[in-house]
Amino acid sequence: QTDLSRPSVREAASMYGTAVAIFLVILVAALQGSVPPENPFPYRILLDPQGTLELSWNVSYVQEAVHFRLLVRELKAGLLFGMSDRGEMENADLVVLWTNGDSAYFADAWSDQKGQIHLDTQQDYQLLQAQGTPDGLALLFKRPFGTCDPKDYFIEDGTVHLVYGILEQPFPSLEAINTSSLQTGLQRVQLLKPEVPVPKVPADTRTMEIRAPDVLIPGQETTYWCYISELPRGFARHHIVMYEPIITQGNEALVHHMEIFQCTGGFESVPHFSGACDSRMKPERLNYCRHVLAAWALGAKAFYYPEEAGLPFGGEGSSRFLRLEVHYHNPLKIQGRRDSSGIRLYYTATLRRFDAGILELGLVYTPVMAIPPREPAFVLTGYCTDKCTQLALPPSGIHIFASQLHTHLTGRKVVTVLARDGRELEVVNRDNHYSPHFQEIRMLKKAVSVFQGDVLITSCTYNTEDRKLATVGGFGILEEMCVNYAHYYPQTQLELCKSAVDAGFLQKYFHLVNRFNSEEVCTCPQASVPQQFASVPWNSFSRDVLAALYGFAPISMHCNKSSAVRFQGEWDRQPLPEIISTLEEPTPRCPASQAQHASGPTVVSIGHSRG
Amino acid sequence: QTDLSRPSVREAASMYGTAVAIFLVILVAALQGSVPPENPFPYRILLDPQGTLELSWNVSYVQEAVHFRLLVRELKAGLLFGMSDRGEMENADLVVLWTNGDSAYFADAWSDQKGQIHLDTQQDYQLLQAQGTPDGLALLFKRPFGTCDPKDYFIEDGTVHLVYGILEQPFPSLEAINTSSLQTGLQRVQLLKPEVPVPKVPADTRTMEIRAPDVLIPGQETTYWCYISELPRGFARHHIVMYEPIITQGNEALVHHMEIFQCTGGFESVPHFSGACDSRMKPERLNYCRHVLAAWALGAKAFYYPEEAGLPFGGEGSSRFLRLEVHYHNPLKIQGRRDSSGIRLYYTATLRRFDAGILELGLVYTPVMAIPPREPAFVLTGYCTDKCTQLALPPSGIHIFASQLHTHLTGRKVVTVLARDGRELEVVNRDNHYSPHFQEIRMLKKAVSVFQGDVLITSCTYNTEDRKLATVGGFGILEEMCVNYAHYYPQTQLELCKSAVDAGFLQKYFHLVNRFNSEEVCTCPQASVPQQFASVPWNSFSRDVLAALYGFAPISMHCNKSSAVRFQGEWDRQPLPEIISTLEEPTPRCPASQAQHASGPTVVSIGHSRG
Repeated sequence: QTDLSRPSVREAASMYGTAVAIFLVILVAALQGSVPPENPFPYRILLDPQGTLELSWNVSYVQEAVHFRLLVRELKAGLLFGMSDRGEMENADLVVLWTNGDSAYFADAWSDQKGQIHLDTQQDYQLLQAQGTPDGLALLFKRPFGTCDPKDYFIEDGTVHLVYGILEQPFPSLEAINTSSLQTGLQRVQLLKPEVPVPKVPADTRTMEIRAPDVLIPGQETTYWCYISELPRGFARHHIVMYEPIITQGNEALVHHMEIFQCTGGFESVPHFSGACDSRMKPERLNYCRHVLAAWALGAKAFYYPEEAGLPFGGEGSSRFLRLEVHYHNPLKIQGRRDSSGIRLYYTATLRRFDAGILELGLVYTPVMAIPPREPAFVLTGYCTDKCTQLALPPSGIHIFASQLHTHLTGRKVVTVLARDGRELEVVNRDNHYSPHFQEIRMLKKAVSVFQGDVLITSCTYNTEDRKLATVGGFGILEEMCVNYAHYYPQTQLELCKSAVDAGFLQKYFHLVNRFNSEEVCTCPQASVPQQFASVPWNSFSRDVLAALYGFAPISMHCNKSSAVRFQGEWDRQPLPEIISTLEEPTPRCPASQAQHASGPTVVSIGHSRG
Repeated sequence: QTDLSRPSVREAASMYGTAVAIFLVILVAALQGSVPPENPFPYRILLDPQGTLELSWNVSYVQEAVHFRLLVRELKAGLLFGMSDRGEMENADLVVLWTNGDSAYFADAWSDQKGQIHLDTQQDYQLLQAQGTPDGLALLFKRPFGTCDPKDYFIEDGTVHLVYGILEQPFPSLEAINTSSLQTGLQRVQLLKPEVPVPKVPADTRTMEIRAPDVLIPGQETTYWCYISELPRGFARHHIVMYEPIITQGNEALVHHMEIFQCTGGFESVPHFSGACDSRMKPERLNYCRHVLAAWALGAKAFYYPEEAGLPFGGEGSSRFLRLEVHYHNPLKIQGRRDSSGIRLYYTATLRRFDAGILELGLVYTPVMAIPPREPAFVLTGYCTDKCTQLALPPSGIHIFASQLHTHLTGRKVVTVLARDGRELEVVNRDNHYSPHFQEIRMLKKAVSVFQGDVLITSCTYNTEDRKLATVGGFGILEEMCVNYAHYYPQTQLELCKSAVDAGFLQKYFHLVNRFNSEEVCTCPQASVPQQFASVPWNSFSRDVLAALYGFAPISMHCNKSSAVRFQGEWDRQPLPEIISTLEEPTPRCPASQAQHASGPTVVSIGHSRG
């Protein structure tokens, strides 16, 4: 299938063996289709920690396609670029630029579960231009969101795991390449950025920079840096209307994500601190700085509030203390790099019509919601019931315009769906490739209005294949959460609308597991729920019955004004919302005509210039 | 989208209103592709009870496509033909030949859930020829097994529900057609006939016809006719090597299926009988005539045994008495039709190397295996364990060459898979559109060899949406079965290898359901299992836990020489076979290039000749 004109492998290897770097210069590019107009790639990201692979892209929702521009600063003998479910190099959907020493080829390919590369029967990555530039080789290509090739990745909303690999030497054929022998890496990004028009910013807008104080980035892979800053005394109530990242030049590949949290209003002061968030020196009070003011992650651009709303900060009852958290991702363990990255807040004293608020949806942080061990995809679901929205929302409803999904380490998918009268109507936010390492606030493509009596259903899918005991809900990093922070306006008193299974029914479950198994589950009254879960003998039955219990038993609701204050009413032993019709998962729409696709690799004429 | 040149609707209607039948004569046919060579359609079936629509087809496994020839004897204003999941006219994948009064069109279309017709964005039925013949209009067209159009039906092994509709009048556009207002019908057929080379038949082959004795077909929709015939006294042991249907001319559309059963060897005589199988006059002994010798269903051709095997009948210990069962399907309630259809057995006295045998796989007929009510697709699974195959099969294994699937009324899918060392290896037989009204013995595309220690897993999917109480396993027509009659050689003593859940674990289930629900499940010792199931309060929990129980609890095995005699060993409380890797469901392979597809309807030039 990849019967290309091949030079002898030995010849190719010796060319490389001379230790003279091979620079491929594209002389003539084989072009199909048209190149988009000037500066057409609004989104940009560095793929590798060295910054030699720079990806820019745009999204056409009309064509249902993404245009990519991949700038390769130091081309060796070729490269792989593509996408896979969770960033693995196996079972990946790839474009490959490679040379056999004579010619260079560009092709749509895929890697099997052993990492071997194969040519796709259908060529869905379409090369538009290959051009030598002063910065390096620029490849322009295009991919529809969905193809009809089952080997292909389906580009959908939410996180996309981009992968790359560097070819250091020629390969006699595509099939000779195996990703396991290459330098490879991954980068997470929201590829399908929403096309939201940029709202106007008021004339009196001022800015405030919350930045790391010239931090020496530790020479370790992962650092969460915590820094306390404060608003001026007497700082009045303002509205944040937008914010944007400030990245210290040269550190673009190291700064992974940043968040600004406001501390609770209760404290007169919070100690100053600048250090690792897991440091023993960290003041205990920093744990009370959890109210999100701003969040940025790699690949995100400026975040704008809708024109009619702003996020209030400053003034009476609002803490002056802010915690900046910067996640440095330094896989090459570079030493001695200094950083002053942070976030620039744009705020106005002319308050907008509505305060924006954040509503926490999903599961209560409680061990009664647990995931059995060795599960590839176990789903837990949290509800915001009709009874709570009826009581807590205004008759005119609220409008969710952005959302930040949150789980701990085993989270793999998160989705929140809006249901009305028992029918799922709309997805609030869905991420089928969610990663706990990539939590950004995402603007919704379209704001979702929630009215009194509506139900919000948040489901998280977990992978516990590498765990031996049940993973229970809780605050610990080895415990789990299932949360959607919904950003909305107008602000209401409702801060929390979450659920958990009724504790009494869970005790019936432990009894029943006991009855079906010879081992003894500790059901003694002094055993805690985590201890009880730890003694369940896990098998298909105890797992299936737990899932059935979560899908059937009544729930305990947290319909709260703040994390401690509930709205008045009976919230225990509530019935699960009944859903009579569900939304379907998105699937690729197959293009009507596929005549334009080449059926094999594109040959690219090249010459060698030896440096 | 269907903006075709349309004459005024009134004009078209008035043309029809003249009560002059409109005959469309295709003058010039728009052709793409090539017409297959002479007599290229080995399979043939009448679609409607009047016999005006005759479908012939062939299968190309190389092209992965079916060529159809549809002969329309009395064309009115057009017709619909296609396929759907279970024969419904809604959500069907259709070709439509229609006229707006001026022109005639042929198009690939689909019907939505309300029966309205829409043009497919991708035209996958390809018209090859439209020709007037002395018998009527002959349409030749082609369809790949799978297309990438999600609206399209995926043609796979097993039953295909063909549907048709008659257009009595012109329609201004395709979208104006709704199937609910048409004369429609369905026909079940195995479209993907296996390409098995026809084995040689020995020179000394003789034939025997087992036929209905000039029966007057009752003027009712459904009749099962039972007729007892007998072999000559002293008829020696022979091998049946093939058989074929004999259909009385004119009754092709009425004779739905036929089976010949042999009675058990125990009776000296069986009373002669010719009458409806459900007649009160039917002798009780006929119930002991259940050993299948031959089975034919609509659309099937001759059945050949493999060259090295034959089905033994006659001789010592074999009953002389045969029961012929003919299913007459007479939806038009035609009166006065006489029938002598039957089956012609080809047998030889020169016994072949191997006796063929029939092995019954699946579930034991017992109420402990039950399906909750209101289930769209509940799965029950029966096992033939490694322990049984180890004991009962010869070291050289057996070869399954044909299979007949069997359930009662709620069966919707059946599949048997072969597993070895915990891994599913091969599908023995799969029918994703199984119908209890279409049970034929099917040759396998490729014989499946089963060795000592192998496991055979038979799963049946049931639809009980129209039932209010649980459906338990058993012999009754309102009870259920899950059986695969595997035809194999060389014959062994193993006649039955089936399972059911352990009865003790089922009692634990009833206790547990009791504990979780306020209603009382009758767990008193005198209650029968059907009574216990009848008192279960069905909800998602009791249903999910029953499914979990069936997927976990130990099983009771029937590893039997005959229906009453077990092989020696411990067969109760056996562990469920552990399966660590499963086979994937078949999915359409998307063709690499689809350039040849037209993107809209094909215009066909026509003229009107008024009769």
